[in-house]
Amino acid sequence: MKSEEQFLELIDTYFPRDHKFLALGRGDDCAVFTGGKEMCVSSDLFLEDVHFRRDYFTAEDIGYKALAVNISDIAAMGAHPVAFTMDLMAPADLDDAFWNGFFKSMSMLARQNDMVLAGGDLSRADKLGVSITAFGTAPGSKRFLTRGNCAPGDILFTVGDLGLARAGLMTLEAVGIKGREAFPAAVLAHLRPKPKVLVGTLLNAAGVKGLMDVSDGLARDLPRFLGPELGADITMPTETLNGNVIAFALGVGADPVEVAMLGGEDYALLGACAPEDSDKTKSVPGLTIIGTVTDNPGIIVNGTPFQAEGFDHFDK
Amino acid sequence: MKSEEQFLELIDTYFPRDHKFLALGRGDDCAVFTGGKEMCVSSDLFLEDVHFRRDYFTAEDIGYKALAVNISDIAAMGAHPVAFTMDLMAPADLDDAFWNGFFKSMSMLARQNDMVLAGGDLSRADKLGVSITAFGTAPGSKRFLTRGNCAPGDILFTVGDLGLARAGLMTLEAVGIKGREAFPAAVLAHLRPKPKVLVGTLLNAAGVKGLMDVSDGLARDLPRFLGPELGADITMPTETLNGNVIAFALGVGADPVEVAMLGGEDYALLGACAPEDSDKTKSVPGLTIIGTVTDNPGIIVNGTPFQAEGFDHFDK
Repeated sequence: MKSEEQFLELIDTYFPRDHKFLALGRGDDCAVFTGGKEMCVSSDLFLEDVHFRRDYFTAEDIGYKALAVNISDIAAMGAHPVAFTMDLMAPADLDDAFWNGFFKSMSMLARQNDMVLAGGDLSRADKLGVSITAFGTAPGSKRFLTRGNCAPGDILFTVGDLGLARAGLMTLEAVGIKGREAFPAAVLAHLRPKPKVLVGTLLNAAGVKGLMDVSDGLARDLPRFLGPELGADITMPTETLNGNVIAFALGVGADPVEVAMLGGEDYALLGACAPEDSDKTKSVPGLTIIGTVTDNPGIIVNGTPFQAEGFDHFDK
Repeated sequence: MKSEEQFLELIDTYFPRDHKFLALGRGDDCAVFTGGKEMCVSSDLFLEDVHFRRDYFTAEDIGYKALAVNISDIAAMGAHPVAFTMDLMAPADLDDAFWNGFFKSMSMLARQNDMVLAGGDLSRADKLGVSITAFGTAPGSKRFLTRGNCAPGDILFTVGDLGLARAGLMTLEAVGIKGREAFPAAVLAHLRPKPKVLVGTLLNAAGVKGLMDVSDGLARDLPRFLGPELGADITMPTETLNGNVIAFALGVGADPVEVAMLGGEDYALLGACAPEDSDKTKSVPGLTIIGTVTDNPGIIVNGTPFQAEGFDHFDK
């Protein structure tokens, strides 16, 4: 890709400019959102050698995951994604085949979620990097699902495998992409996390109290979800964990439950509902009840206080 | 700055969370905009060794300009900036004094423009980089000012010095910050470009046909403003240019008008109005009439077709 014009032409072949949500598409100084409804917004970085490596991520994996991690934040608001902007840092050594793969898989994920690329910026850089800002709207007359609305006795649940992506990352870092043979589910969970948009909107319809994206591990994110006044009593039998998490943990001599609690990049959902709504909530597919909210700060896991810290992307 | 928490605490000391435009401020999976009005949105990268250098930009300059270039896109829509999100790539070698300077000047510019920091992301990176997405609303019952609404005979105008920031960049690249002594206005125009928000809204009120941010030089941006069917007849006497542009050009043996036309990072405004609106438009302070729209593609400058190409950030 030699010039900015060639890049923009390629982007135009993969991403339509029009969308019911846009009064003005990309190509001007700004895009214009039609307005009317409240809109949720989230920004995430996806950087080479911090969030991904080019030696075990394909172009398609990178394009996919850069957008998926942003969609996950929209899903955690119980919202529908509608649009995104992308600032792209493009090293000169990547060829047209790379960019076609990158944009193709990103545009496929965008189309699946009816999201329009509303604008962005393009620059040369030493390493590949993507900064995406994603936008969503609440379904129908529903509100956005936030954190910190829990009361003691509320039911806590998760959607998605805890610790699985972390096991995948550790495997990929240790042995590269061939680790896929030993732990296919774990490696896939790291390379291609599935944003849980449909489940998020179903949980919104079911009237849950709050919802959150678990991206730094449950041990770290659960206190953020509960706030400083509350704690949780969690029951997490080893046999409920993904087989890859159990096998990975046993292979490295770790406790599978600890691996699941520490997680990192799970892109699972964590939520809470009132006890009287638990039947309605449990009917949402893929949901696992993990425990209850307590009036005492701190997390109890399988009867024992949990101490270890989660995953700090910034320290990484 | 050791941990993500310390960083977020520092950000909280400089940037308030609340704003009339936000139903939910930063700290959750997403922020929530109140909606109601149409909203314009723009994203820009500001990267070390591509858009700025740390050896002649202070921390305060970097924090200021990263936001200023985004505000300039909002101003070019004739809009009021209201909010922004920031993805920050932070090298480990920058100390607390740096970050205090960076956030202090950025937050001052945000406050001057009544903008709220609505969210973002933070990551380690080898080089300092900022990706900002900025949001604006049209004033009162006005629309947004876009490109491509011109007809032959329309009056073309600019606001801001053309070529001045480019002369500043060339000076800084050649001799570093001491170039400020020879060309103070040029160096300041590169380090601290002034977003023209007030002028943009006044031009919107005056009923101009279109407005655009000149960031790649007038030679490159004017055809983008006019579209493929139209051209322009420009009159640009050397004596109307900034004295620093003239002196810089003569010093390097270049034509001052060519330096002004090629520009780059001017963050000036380019606009057009109907001939019958020219008196009303000319009353806006700081405005310079540069010529008229013609029905023939191509740009005539001082009677001669202008050929040289502008500034491609991407090729840089």
